[in-house]
Amino acid sequence: MRRHNFSKGHGTRNDFVIIDDQHGMQELTPDIVVALCDRRAGVGADGVLRVVRAQHMSDWDGDPDLWFMDYHNADGSVAEMCGNGLRVFARHLVNEQLVPTGEFTVATRSGLRQVQVARGGLISTSLGHAVVSDGPLTVTHAGQSWPATRVDVGNPHAVVFVDDATRVGLNLHVAPTWDPAEEFPRGTNVEFVTVRAPGVLDMRVYERGSGETESCGTGVVASAASYRKQSDHDGDVVVHVAGGELTVTFDGDEVWLTGPALVYARGEFWW
Amino acid sequence: MRRHNFSKGHGTRNDFVIIDDQHGMQELTPDIVVALCDRRAGVGADGVLRVVRAQHMSDWDGDPDLWFMDYHNADGSVAEMCGNGLRVFARHLVNEQLVPTGEFTVATRSGLRQVQVARGGLISTSLGHAVVSDGPLTVTHAGQSWPATRVDVGNPHAVVFVDDATRVGLNLHVAPTWDPAEEFPRGTNVEFVTVRAPGVLDMRVYERGSGETESCGTGVVASAASYRKQSDHDGDVVVHVAGGELTVTFDGDEVWLTGPALVYARGEFWW
Repeated sequence: MRRHNFSKGHGTRNDFVIIDDQHGMQELTPDIVVALCDRRAGVGADGVLRVVRAQHMSDWDGDPDLWFMDYHNADGSVAEMCGNGLRVFARHLVNEQLVPTGEFTVATRSGLRQVQVARGGLISTSLGHAVVSDGPLTVTHAGQSWPATRVDVGNPHAVVFVDDATRVGLNLHVAPTWDPAEEFPRGTNVEFVTVRAPGVLDMRVYERGSGETESCGTGVVASAASYRKQSDHDGDVVVHVAGGELTVTFDGDEVWLTGPALVYARGEFWW
Repeated sequence: MRRHNFSKGHGTRNDFVIIDDQHGMQELTPDIVVALCDRRAGVGADGVLRVVRAQHMSDWDGDPDLWFMDYHNADGSVAEMCGNGLRVFARHLVNEQLVPTGEFTVATRSGLRQVQVARGGLISTSLGHAVVSDGPLTVTHAGQSWPATRVDVGNPHAVVFVDDATRVGLNLHVAPTWDPAEEFPRGTNVEFVTVRAPGVLDMRVYERGSGETESCGTGVVASAASYRKQSDHDGDVVVHVAGGELTVTFDGDEVWLTGPALVYARGEFWW
């Protein structure tokens, strides 16, 4: 049995175990990730964020002194990016005084991401580009079909505008389907979006591999990008999800996501 | 914001936040219990076990030096007993050297409960009496009906014997019903039990107010008591649940439950 020191945080109720590993001494095997994320016999989380200097990542050839976000899904697999996880990672760096100012760069498997501590303690992160595609796409769920928009935010999304995304009748226990089926050979996230007011959206999301979740950072960005393309709205877009509220800002081709991130526990786990 | 020190443990995957409060200085309001048990923004658990000397419980008139198990459900309500929680509570007392030997008495809202650290580090606890009632009772679920047995273990149970409790087709997402309906005016736990071998049962449980859970200590006792009454088996009864394995021992009228209990994390939570 070993002792693992951890911190725990969440961003709009997407929650993460944080492991400090400045010198790259801790190998996160799938077994230990699954054990840490177990919600009854472990710490419990959607994923693990290992905090390590980039020089210790074997594939990294950029600035060796950056902090690298080594992200692992709860099932033990490695993922490239996680929008809500990046904010929690940044909050931890600030809390632990691992960065000298409130503006810094984080290294990820998707490349460099900019971070700014924003007003009211919110955290803004750059999430690269959101590429909205044309072309016919239909999403079907529970016997109803809607036209959908494909958006690529590093991962795939199909965005559907519906009359009321928050209504109880929209049961997302089962996965939506899409046509043409070959459009997403490895599956897709599906966002159900309602325009509440100009620049204000309600969103629910079916995440590929997870089912309905209370928040999805890239899904929020995809929904905002799709909304801007189909409307004449030019400013920020506020997106309400079950886990809270996020703001999407468009700076040329670069998209920024701003929202809360909290680290609220720390301790040791024996396994 | 306050800091709350906690430990975390589970018994057959029924999990608990443990709060040390020897001198009765910490009031567990429903708000803090709900926050601690929140599985995304808190520590996450099925309930909270406060460890307090009995003298600090206002209704207690027994031995003032006993440890009292002050149990709270995840929804903030107070409960009288929890079989799996009692083992985790006992494990914590032993780990923290709060008891001098492996045999001791714990005070609970249901009265005194005996504890013994058993072979292999398992923990045995007395759970009082299991009263099996005669009289017609029928449980209906998903269009199928079975004769059922009522068992009182301090809380109500309806035990049903089925061909294969572990089969996937038994979908316990919705609550079973019973006839006569007035038999359980405040609801009941329902156990679906299969005899795997003499003295060995498989059990699944629908817990009143919670839905299907991976384990239920009193449900395991109720199932074993009902099995003994309808068979000629006279020894211990081993019960397999999704969260692990428990053994029920009958000592005259007194029932003992033996199983694993583990405390595997500790830390601080800010709220």
